[in-house]
Amino acid sequence: MSLSSQSNAGRAGDLPVLQVAMVGHAFMGRAHGNAYRQANHFFDLPFQVVPAVIVGRDQARADAAAHKLGFARATTDLAAVLADPAIQIVDVATPNDSHYEIAMAALRAKKHVLCEKPLAMTVAQCKEMAALAKKQKVRVGLWHNYRRAPATRLAAQMVARGDLGAIRQVRAVYLQDWLSDGSVPASWRTSKKTCGSGAHGDLNAHLIDLTRALTGLEFESVCAVQQTFTKERPDGNGGKAKVDVDDAFCFLAKFKGGAIGTYEATRTAPGRKNHNCIEISGEKGSLRWNLERLNELEFFSFADARDGQGFRTILCMDSVHPYAPNWWPDGHMIGYEHTFVHHLVDFVRALHSGEPFAPDFADGVAVQCVLEAALQAAKKGTWVKVPK
Amino acid sequence: MSLSSQSNAGRAGDLPVLQVAMVGHAFMGRAHGNAYRQANHFFDLPFQVVPAVIVGRDQARADAAAHKLGFARATTDLAAVLADPAIQIVDVATPNDSHYEIAMAALRAKKHVLCEKPLAMTVAQCKEMAALAKKQKVRVGLWHNYRRAPATRLAAQMVARGDLGAIRQVRAVYLQDWLSDGSVPASWRTSKKTCGSGAHGDLNAHLIDLTRALTGLEFESVCAVQQTFTKERPDGNGGKAKVDVDDAFCFLAKFKGGAIGTYEATRTAPGRKNHNCIEISGEKGSLRWNLERLNELEFFSFADARDGQGFRTILCMDSVHPYAPNWWPDGHMIGYEHTFVHHLVDFVRALHSGEPFAPDFADGVAVQCVLEAALQAAKKGTWVKVPK
Amino acid sequence: MSLSSQSNAGRAGDLPVLQVAMVGHAFMGRAHGNAYRQANHFFDLPFQVVPAVIVGRDQARADAAAHKLGFARATTDLAAVLADPAIQIVDVATPNDSHYEIAMAALRAKKHVLCEKPLAMTVAQCKEMAALAKKQKVRVGLWHNYRRAPATRLAAQMVARGDLGAIRQVRAVYLQDWLSDGSVPASWRTSKKTCGSGAHGDLNAHLIDLTRALTGLEFESVCAVQQTFTKERPDGNGGKAKVDVDDAFCFLAKFKGGAIGTYEATRTAPGRKNHNCIEISGEKGSLRWNLERLNELEFFSFADARDGQGFRTILCMDSVHPYAPNWWPDGHMIGYEHTFVHHLVDFVRALHSGEPFAPDFADGVAVQCVLEAALQAAKKGTWVKVPK
Amino acid sequence: MSLSSQSNAGRAGDLPVLQVAMVGHAFMGRAHGNAYRQANHFFDLPFQVVPAVIVGRDQARADAAAHKLGFARATTDLAAVLADPAIQIVDVATPNDSHYEIAMAALRAKKHVLCEKPLAMTVAQCKEMAALAKKQKVRVGLWHNYRRAPATRLAAQMVARGDLGAIRQVRAVYLQDWLSDGSVPASWRTSKKTCGSGAHGDLNAHLIDLTRALTGLEFESVCAVQQTFTKERPDGNGGKAKVDVDDAFCFLAKFKGGAIGTYEATRTAPGRKNHNCIEISGEKGSLRWNLERLNELEFFSFADARDGQGFRTILCMDSVHPYAPNWWPDGHMIGYEHTFVHHLVDFVRALHSGEPFAPDFADGVAVQCVLEAALQAAKKGTWVKVPK
Repeated sequence: MSLSSQSNAGRAGDLPVLQVAMVGHAFMGRAHGNAYRQANHFFDLPFQVVPAVIVGRDQARADAAAHKLGFARATTDLAAVLADPAIQIVDVATPNDSHYEIAMAALRAKKHVLCEKPLAMTVAQCKEMAALAKKQKVRVGLWHNYRRAPATRLAAQMVARGDLGAIRQVRAVYLQDWLSDGSVPASWRTSKKTCGSGAHGDLNAHLIDLTRALTGLEFESVCAVQQTFTKERPDGNGGKAKVDVDDAFCFLAKFKGGAIGTYEATRTAPGRKNHNCIEISGEKGSLRWNLERLNELEFFSFADARDGQGFRTILCMDSVHPYAPNWWPDGHMIGYEHTFVHHLVDFVRALHSGEPFAPDFADGVAVQCVLEAALQAAKKGTWVKVPK
Repeated sequence: MSLSSQSNAGRAGDLPVLQVAMVGHAFMGRAHGNAYRQANHFFDLPFQVVPAVIVGRDQARADAAAHKLGFARATTDLAAVLADPAIQIVDVATPNDSHYEIAMAALRAKKHVLCEKPLAMTVAQCKEMAALAKKQKVRVGLWHNYRRAPATRLAAQMVARGDLGAIRQVRAVYLQDWLSDGSVPASWRTSKKTCGSGAHGDLNAHLIDLTRALTGLEFESVCAVQQTFTKERPDGNGGKAKVDVDDAFCFLAKFKGGAIGTYEATRTAPGRKNHNCIEISGEKGSLRWNLERLNELEFFSFADARDGQGFRTILCMDSVHPYAPNWWPDGHMIGYEHTFVHHLVDFVRALHSGEPFAPDFADGVAVQCVLEAALQAAKKGTWVKVPK
Repeated sequence: MSLSSQSNAGRAGDLPVLQVAMVGHAFMGRAHGNAYRQANHFFDLPFQVVPAVIVGRDQARADAAAHKLGFARATTDLAAVLADPAIQIVDVATPNDSHYEIAMAALRAKKHVLCEKPLAMTVAQCKEMAALAKKQKVRVGLWHNYRRAPATRLAAQMVARGDLGAIRQVRAVYLQDWLSDGSVPASWRTSKKTCGSGAHGDLNAHLIDLTRALTGLEFESVCAVQQTFTKERPDGNGGKAKVDVDDAFCFLAKFKGGAIGTYEATRTAPGRKNHNCIEISGEKGSLRWNLERLNELEFFSFADARDGQGFRTILCMDSVHPYAPNWWPDGHMIGYEHTFVHHLVDFVRALHSGEPFAPDFADGVAVQCVLEAALQAAKKGTWVKVPK
Repeated sequence: MSLSSQSNAGRAGDLPVLQVAMVGHAFMGRAHGNAYRQANHFFDLPFQVVPAVIVGRDQARADAAAHKLGFARATTDLAAVLADPAIQIVDVATPNDSHYEIAMAALRAKKHVLCEKPLAMTVAQCKEMAALAKKQKVRVGLWHNYRRAPATRLAAQMVARGDLGAIRQVRAVYLQDWLSDGSVPASWRTSKKTCGSGAHGDLNAHLIDLTRALTGLEFESVCAVQQTFTKERPDGNGGKAKVDVDDAFCFLAKFKGGAIGTYEATRTAPGRKNHNCIEISGEKGSLRWNLERLNELEFFSFADARDGQGFRTILCMDSVHPYAPNWWPDGHMIGYEHTFVHHLVDFVRALHSGEPFAPDFADGVAVQCVLEAALQAAKKGTWVKVPK
């Protein structure tokens, strides 16, 4: 008998089914898998999402993952999955360097594609992917999940409705500390070959997407500095492996229209575990959000009575807040993985309604353009224009 | 086809199955249902938990709930469920005034029972339930879920290992604000008949259980004050309904051994949404936890270097923290409902190992004794001894 | 040459002079002395305050204090000071058990009196003092300085103008930790003879005054619990001294009109250094203030836009806030001792204008009535009415 | 009669006197004046500091300032003051563009000089001043007061004793919001002629000095971006004045030895009043300080027990903390102006002991070099080396 299953059969038949094939099943696979299992239980959707098949490289491990994550089955045969007309969505949850190949194959097979970030390793790849998605007339999404916390969604709404006036400044940091210790071994995350960059591609990617999602600003040019504090790490076999990606990467940004911003991604900030924090200053007010307290949004407004002004902490778990009423009564927190559920929910609804879904692959191109420009800027020691 | 289902069939067979019947399917049912669906996906358990059947009063609504919550089927026939040998656990998730009757029936049927708090309406009922559970040699649990956040579990461990020394003082508040507005209608929560009390039974119950779980202290005597600020509320039919339970209820406590504490439950504290906050002062240090930031634990220790002492904020989502490594990598928050998953996980493991599980019905008796003593104290205007 | 002196002579002559005699010169004397030196430098006052003479028990120590605190001279002859028509204000800054005698003598001499809290050791004494002050038609003030932080004054204004609606609940704690350690020696602060009580008289006195100042509520009845965790302490001579005052003292309060409150004073809460914190819940909003962040006021209002509600942190150092513009530009913090300066400033202005000044000795009576009622309540184990 | 004066005469004679002439008497003059009045009252110093004379441009205003600030007299004749052998210290508290001229004159007259920041308008001027100070063998200090909060001093000590290990990253922001509103008039602070730059020279100067003081790091190169969001402001006469300085200025820094940093100064961050905040990440731990909570220091250490790690908030008002025991008992906050008192105290002690005092004019040169390099970087759009 499967996890969380047995009958219900007659009733689910009321909804058209969306079968998902997920390629990859590590950390991100767990988060996506949870979304597939949970979405229909908390949201009324136009489809019944079905986690149908996991595609892995090793059958036994894929089987185990399918079982653990609630997928119906597992396979190592991606081609067969892509050829299966029952599969409607392909989720690319593999390491970064295979996103391009798998997503392109899925697009060619006319599947809707949900791709883990980063979209690909280069701007060129990203553009190809975006172009093919457009040509194939399928729907695509990029898993920048942090756009879809209740607090960040509320922030986007507040900016959009003018609560802050024109946006002038962004200060964004994504601070972690797991590489502070030089004895932490090298891994795919510390190798340029598999990642392209270190903290930059991993963490600044989120900050860039969040900036665009919350403010609508577009990056114009950047200058940057990066540093690798630990140049060699244990390779796990008693030897040493060279670290050829950044531990920390900071950049300055000029936006179209005159706004400016500061960005920092690091894995060497002791005490900061997952400190993805963005502060936005507008003409009339400010907002601040921090993933380590993801249900809270800080807001300051000059519109408040003069002697009562101050940053307020909005606990974004009220029935008037985005997504919140689908979970628990007012004041009950949600966690990290819920952002993936919201991402899926919105994607599924967009599939049905035909309305736009963001971030799509064009957004992935935009993020990658900033990331690459910043890498060049760090290398050259100059400001670099972000291509369109 | 069911939610999150299809095959997996062969594999789940590896684990013995635990079939759960859940009586009731409102707010608490949603939280319990989620636990049944999620536990095996994130934890390696000795059983496969199967949300088998929902028991409701209305077949159509129960059917809908079963579908939404991932149960295999629904029924209105509790007796049949209790007679079904396949059902091993009965979960009592109904309104407070029916806990006693349903749980007693389940115990008579030799089912393991998980009961929503409060255990029952009176100490006498609670004692009967605890006695019958003991006599039937079944396992029972009370859903005081807040014991099982990573942060509260860590707190209990820290107290137990002596990080605070002898405990001297507890200050505990559970503050909400949803009854601040006099136009909020009356409901079962504002009626003594269905609830016994207002904020007191609902919220102080959590504080009493948390105190016992975190410190091991036993209440000796209490004195109390209560107030109902809004004596009548709209009855939903254009009339008024009398409110005969407290909006706010505060009490002082003396513990066995000399410690003392202050307690407050209220639904009229504007801005406090779910402010379940306990601070524990010991000889050597202090701890503070707040449900509104449930992943954090504040800790002060005199053992730190003198010039570097201060309350530290422990983000309890590290692989060394209780429950945390089963969810996400370090630094990724979990939410409210995860505490129910942990509760279930520990109960299932205790079922298998035969080790004790707390809180059980004896703990429910202890909580109810304090609640009742406090109600009497408020009524009489004196200190009241808490019976054993 | 004196501290901060030399000429200026001609100019100061423009203002009438207020000569102050301060009796006592320990901790509180330092804080008062600072106020006398600083007030005219930052505020435009109708008088030039002159710290004229310190009265001590030991001439050498009094001389040193006069020098250090900026007083013109020192003496041990209180009678002569009281007989000196040049002295207009007598400040009683001695240990608690001498307040009554000294203040009464000063009142008999028709001096204005500023008395350190507590006003006296018993309600009876306080009433005598208040009566004599009234009869002599002099002005009196009680140094409950915490009323006069910009943040607490703003809080009082906000309550008075209705930002919170009717006040329903108060939760107030004054937590310290310096007696957590059992090896801290006994002192006048741990002896009933010199203090009357321990944390209660010292710290709850502040909470009671703050409650009255911020909310206007009057205490009706109280019940209480106290505890002494360390019954004996080193006496400083190799022996042990019995501790006959409370380490911690908690009480519940009913106010006239139906509001309720919780109070706690303790010296055994590790990590809480000077945590004088009051939270006020009204119909429409809440306020919270904490001495450890004395420039901040937290405010929640249901009047804010529904999706943007949250506690806001008002940094009360803006030119629109009470007292603030006299110090530094917006955003620059002030400290503990500034509250004494404000107290003096308001007292001096009230002397000139003839308008009321609070807290006066009648307020001192009110505070003492609550303190005493709470002591009786703790002793008797019942609710005790607060006398008028 | 003067403020805070009268006799004491015989006793003060015990200490040698340090007579101070202060040039200028606006905002900074008030802060310095307070330091001169207060230092001896709270600290045991080897000299009696005497605020002797204020030098202004207008006799009446200078007289009023002398009276208000506690100086013995006022004059408009700087030359006469410099020729007066009784004057030992000249304090330059005038607008930025006159620092150079006045300080140079004072140095030529062999006075000790305390200069408000910035030291001068150009690196060249700063170097001349430092050279002359050295040549004249007088002592000089630069009023970078934020080095001398108890918390920042503690931070410097913690870094120096190795609590953080090697420093890797600095993130520093100084955020204000008073120019957010376009209707705020132009002033000397918005004009390049009087200030050199806007937020940059005013606020980044503090961050640069703090970085050096707390970490010992030296800046190697910088790249920068600046923006003026409001290009014209009311000129106070019904017209418009062009704003030719930055509202916001951000820069990246590389330090000698490989550390990196981000810096931002702005006057257009709504809600940030005086948010001078620096976070330092080392190998073993982190520190964070924020002027808006100036008595607190946040500290994270990997040396804490693994499951109890977290940022702790050290309330730096304990008797073991720098400067703190001279003020009030443990747990009592100090304010903004106290940092100036500490600066003076340390300067006076250094005068006596002959030990070094920092920041001196060489430090002023270093700060100015970074500021200028950053201005060039912003202009040229490249990284610019910081000259030695």
